[in-house]
Amino acid sequence: MDEPTLAHSVRLTDDGVLILDRRVFPARREWVRCATVEDVAKAIEDMVTQSSGPYFAALWGMVLAAREAATRPDPLAYLRQAGERLVATRRTNNHLRKAVHAVLSAVDEADLVGSATAGALAGDERYRSRSRALGRHTARLLPDDASLLTHCWADLYLVELVRAARESGRTFTVHCTETRPYLQGARLTAETLAEMGVETTLITDGMGAAVLASGRIDALVTAADRVTMDGHVVNKIGTLGLAVAAHAYGVPFLAMVQAPDRLAPTAADVPIEYRSGAEVLTAAGVVHPAIRGLYPAFDVTPPRFVSTVVTDRGPFDPDQLVGYHEQE
Amino acid sequence: MDEPTLAHSVRLTDDGVLILDRRVFPARREWVRCATVEDVAKAIEDMVTQSSGPYFAALWGMVLAAREAATRPDPLAYLRQAGERLVATRRTNNHLRKAVHAVLSAVDEADLVGSATAGALAGDERYRSRSRALGRHTARLLPDDASLLTHCWADLYLVELVRAARESGRTFTVHCTETRPYLQGARLTAETLAEMGVETTLITDGMGAAVLASGRIDALVTAADRVTMDGHVVNKIGTLGLAVAAHAYGVPFLAMVQAPDRLAPTAADVPIEYRSGAEVLTAAGVVHPAIRGLYPAFDVTPPRFVSTVVTDRGPFDPDQLVGYHEQE
Repeated sequence: MDEPTLAHSVRLTDDGVLILDRRVFPARREWVRCATVEDVAKAIEDMVTQSSGPYFAALWGMVLAAREAATRPDPLAYLRQAGERLVATRRTNNHLRKAVHAVLSAVDEADLVGSATAGALAGDERYRSRSRALGRHTARLLPDDASLLTHCWADLYLVELVRAARESGRTFTVHCTETRPYLQGARLTAETLAEMGVETTLITDGMGAAVLASGRIDALVTAADRVTMDGHVVNKIGTLGLAVAAHAYGVPFLAMVQAPDRLAPTAADVPIEYRSGAEVLTAAGVVHPAIRGLYPAFDVTPPRFVSTVVTDRGPFDPDQLVGYHEQE
Repeated sequence: MDEPTLAHSVRLTDDGVLILDRRVFPARREWVRCATVEDVAKAIEDMVTQSSGPYFAALWGMVLAAREAATRPDPLAYLRQAGERLVATRRTNNHLRKAVHAVLSAVDEADLVGSATAGALAGDERYRSRSRALGRHTARLLPDDASLLTHCWADLYLVELVRAARESGRTFTVHCTETRPYLQGARLTAETLAEMGVETTLITDGMGAAVLASGRIDALVTAADRVTMDGHVVNKIGTLGLAVAAHAYGVPFLAMVQAPDRLAPTAADVPIEYRSGAEVLTAAGVVHPAIRGLYPAFDVTPPRFVSTVVTDRGPFDPDQLVGYHEQE
C-alpha cells in the first residue's frame, strides 16, 4: 500500500481540525476533533499526535486561528499569539516553528482565512515534497536487500524511504524498537511498515545493541527532531544508546532531517523536553508510592556517533552541515 | 526493611513447593503451588520466577524429586533425570546446574529425602552467604552517596549490596531500567529497593545512555547470569547497550557474579536463550499479523566494555578471572 494510514492523519474540516489519535492507534482508529486552535495546542501537548503530526496539526490549527481572528479587534496580533501558543507546546522539534511561519508569512489581512489556508496548503506540500527528496537521498545510501534498525517513528521520512527504495527496484527489511513508554515503534512504525508490506521485526528498546552486535544490521536509520549546525542529532530518547552501540560495532548511523537548524548552532540551543515522570510509572504499572519516574523525551547524539546526516539536499558529514545552507 | 519480600520467594511445604509469581508481583502477591518436580520445571520455564529464583526453586524441586524417587525402582536414576530436566529449563544461567549439583552431591540412598533436604538447605545457605560476600565486596567499590544505574533484577546480590552499604554507614540512590518485556526492573528491582528504603528512579530501557551521558551516574552495576573465564558478561538483554554507553562516557561497569564459570572458557560456551517472539508482540499490544517479534533473553558484553567483575572473593579485572579459581 502506497498511502499508509498515518500519512494523512490530520484533516481540516468546516468546523475544526481532526487529528488521528496516535496514542491508541492501531488498536483503535479514533479521531480527536479540535474546534479551536487552543484545542489543537492541547492535543499536541497531550501527544494525540507526534513526530511529523504536530507540523500538520499546527498548519491547520493556524487556519482555525485565522477563522477565529476574523472577529477580533487585532486579527494579526491574534494570529501571532496563536502561533506562539502552538510553538510553545513542544520545544524540542522545530517543526512547529516552521509550520507557524509557513502560515504567518502567507497571511494577507484582506483575506485572512483564504491566505492562511493557502499558506497551510503550501506548507503541507512543501513538507511532503522535502520528505520525498529526503527519502530518495536516503534510499541511495543503502545496499540492496538492506537490513535496517530504526527507533521510534520517522513518519513521512520513513514512508518516503520505503517508496523511494521501491521505485528504484530495491527492498529492505526493518527491525524496529518498541520505543517506550508510548510504544511508537510498536504501534506506529511496525504497523505502518506492515501496512506497506515491508518485512518488520519488533524488538524491545534494550535489544538494539545486541541486534547491532550480531552483524545482521546494515544501517541504523532514524529521523531527527533537530540537527544542530555542529552535527548533534536530537531525537527520541533511546537514539543515543543505539548510535553509541552502532559506532562500537561499525554499523553506520544515518540521521534523516529535512535540514539542519540554522537557529541551533549547538546542542545547548535545543531545549530538551522533560515530560512527567508519572508517564513512565503508569506505563510500567509501578505501585510503590516512593518510586519516582524520569522522562526526558529526547536525547542528544554527539557528532562522533553520527555517520551521515541525510537532508532533502542530500547526505552530509555531521561536521560539514554548513554546506547545506551554502547551497541556497 | 532488611528482608524484602523477594528475598524469600520459594518455600518448601509438606505437599510441594510454593513459588511467588514474579510475573504479577507486586500488583498481586500470588504463590504458585508446584506439587511435583515437573511442576517446578514448568514454573521455571514459564517465568513464574527468575534471576536467583530458579536456583532456589531447583533446590527445593530436587527435594520433591527425592520424595517422588522413594517409590521408584531406581531412586538415584530418577533423581539424576529430575536434575537434568531442571537444568534444561533455562540454559543461559548456570545457577540451575549448581542447585542440582548441591542436592545430588549430598544424596545418600539410605535416607533419600533427609539427605536431599540437607543438601538443599546447605545450597540455600551457601548461596545466601556468597551473595552476602559479593554485596560487601561491591559496596567497598562505590563512592559515598553513589548514584547507580542498574538493569533488570540483580536479586539477592542487590539486596546484599544495600545491606552492606548500610552496615558501613553509606547510602546510594538507584536509577533502574524497566526491563521490557517482563518489566523486572520496574516490578522487582524498583519495588524491592523502595521496600528497603532506597531512593529509586525508574527509567525506560531506552533512557540508559542519556542518563549515563548526563554525568549523574557513578557506576553501572548489574548482576551477571554467567561470566566466562575470558571476561564476557552474559546478562539480561539490554546490559550490552548500557555497558557500551557507560564505556563511551567513562562510567565504570561493575558486573556482580558469585564466580566466573570454569566450564565456560568463552562466550561460545554459553547458550543464549531465545524466548518466543510472540512475548514481545503481546507485551507491546501489536495487532498487524505480519509483524514478527524477536526475543533474545540475554546478551553478551565483551570484556572491553566491562570494568570489574565483582565476585564473592572480591573484584577482578575481566582479563584476570583465572585468579578467582587459583584462590581455591
